[in-house]
Amino acid sequence: MSHSELQNLIQILGKMPGLGPRSGRRMALHLLKKKESALKPLIDTLTNVYDTIVECHVCHTIDTQSPCKICTDPKRNPKKLCIVEGVADLWAMERSRFYDGHYHILGGVLSAMDGIGPDQLHLQSLVDRMTDANVEEVTLALSATVDGQTTLYYVAELLKPFDVKVTSLAHGVPMGGELDYLDDGTLSTAFNARRTLDIAS
Amino acid sequence: MSHSELQNLIQILGKMPGLGPRSGRRMALHLLKKKESALKPLIDTLTNVYDTIVECHVCHTIDTQSPCKICTDPKRNPKKLCIVEGVADLWAMERSRFYDGHYHILGGVLSAMDGIGPDQLHLQSLVDRMTDANVEEVTLALSATVDGQTTLYYVAELLKPFDVKVTSLAHGVPMGGELDYLDDGTLSTAFNARRTLDIAS
Repeated sequence: MSHSELQNLIQILGKMPGLGPRSGRRMALHLLKKKESALKPLIDTLTNVYDTIVECHVCHTIDTQSPCKICTDPKRNPKKLCIVEGVADLWAMERSRFYDGHYHILGGVLSAMDGIGPDQLHLQSLVDRMTDANVEEVTLALSATVDGQTTLYYVAELLKPFDVKVTSLAHGVPMGGELDYLDDGTLSTAFNARRTLDIAS
Repeated sequence: MSHSELQNLIQILGKMPGLGPRSGRRMALHLLKKKESALKPLIDTLTNVYDTIVECHVCHTIDTQSPCKICTDPKRNPKKLCIVEGVADLWAMERSRFYDGHYHILGGVLSAMDGIGPDQLHLQSLVDRMTDANVEEVTLALSATVDGQTTLYYVAELLKPFDVKVTSLAHGVPMGGELDYLDDGTLSTAFNARRTLDIAS
């Protein structure tokens, strides 16, 4: 492993999320074993993505254009706004194909542990949007973690001056979830939010 | 996730060894979040590696030169040759810093399951090396798997015509290994290969 450029590559790969020194080495070797069929296409695609992908200045997602395709899509309902933590969450929503409104990406959640305060999130642009646009409902689709829920209440407070309905995701038993394996918090939340069944007569 | 170039990147990353669609997405997002501090250096390093790394035509390892730095190092003993399956094994040997001889990389092991026969391994170049060079000992450092051991005996047979000592790695209890957790094969191999202790009087 004498070649420094190769060591450099292994180090960079090993620092990717979910990878370590061993998997970095493994990936580097895989790429070098298949220089033309794996390494070359990866370089080309990364370069292409680097050149073309930008952040949407409205909703802060990533796309080839700004404003992005979702923000400019005339078929989407501009009266609905869904606030998510990151691009991955937007993608998860889009994969489910049930939502036809717009998005706003916070770029993180408030976290005392990681030192992330309101200034590091895209909150000013959210307030600007709320002032300009004619939004009727804002849904806060944030993780059910302590930081996610703290952020939820912070953003909800921020939205109070606006004449808008603020909603959040329901908590409860996940689809396919077995009660036996569920944590106490989820179970009690699901019980407290129990619904009356409409039994057709 | 409408942008096809981005989907392309996620697909390529998701096919890397040890990664899947989810970790591919995660890695792509990480790279796009830090375009200048993560994506750019990765592109540069990959391009650099693509341009400079070649396979050594003697031992088949990867390096910036062919013959490689190990093959041309005058401080290394050309009378010792260590046969390994791949570059990762060579790196593992080099990390241990106890071996000062040369290497020969097979590029795989014989495998009926994966359809890998002797023609796919670097065996002809091994025979050529044995004919030309003045090797005294060949050590077969192959995995203790069925395929590894099959390959070991195949190569040992191939080396018979040459006047050379052929050795293989010892099997036994790994350093730090607890007997309780050891498989039966290793334990019986270690017992059968037991050594007399030299107790200083």
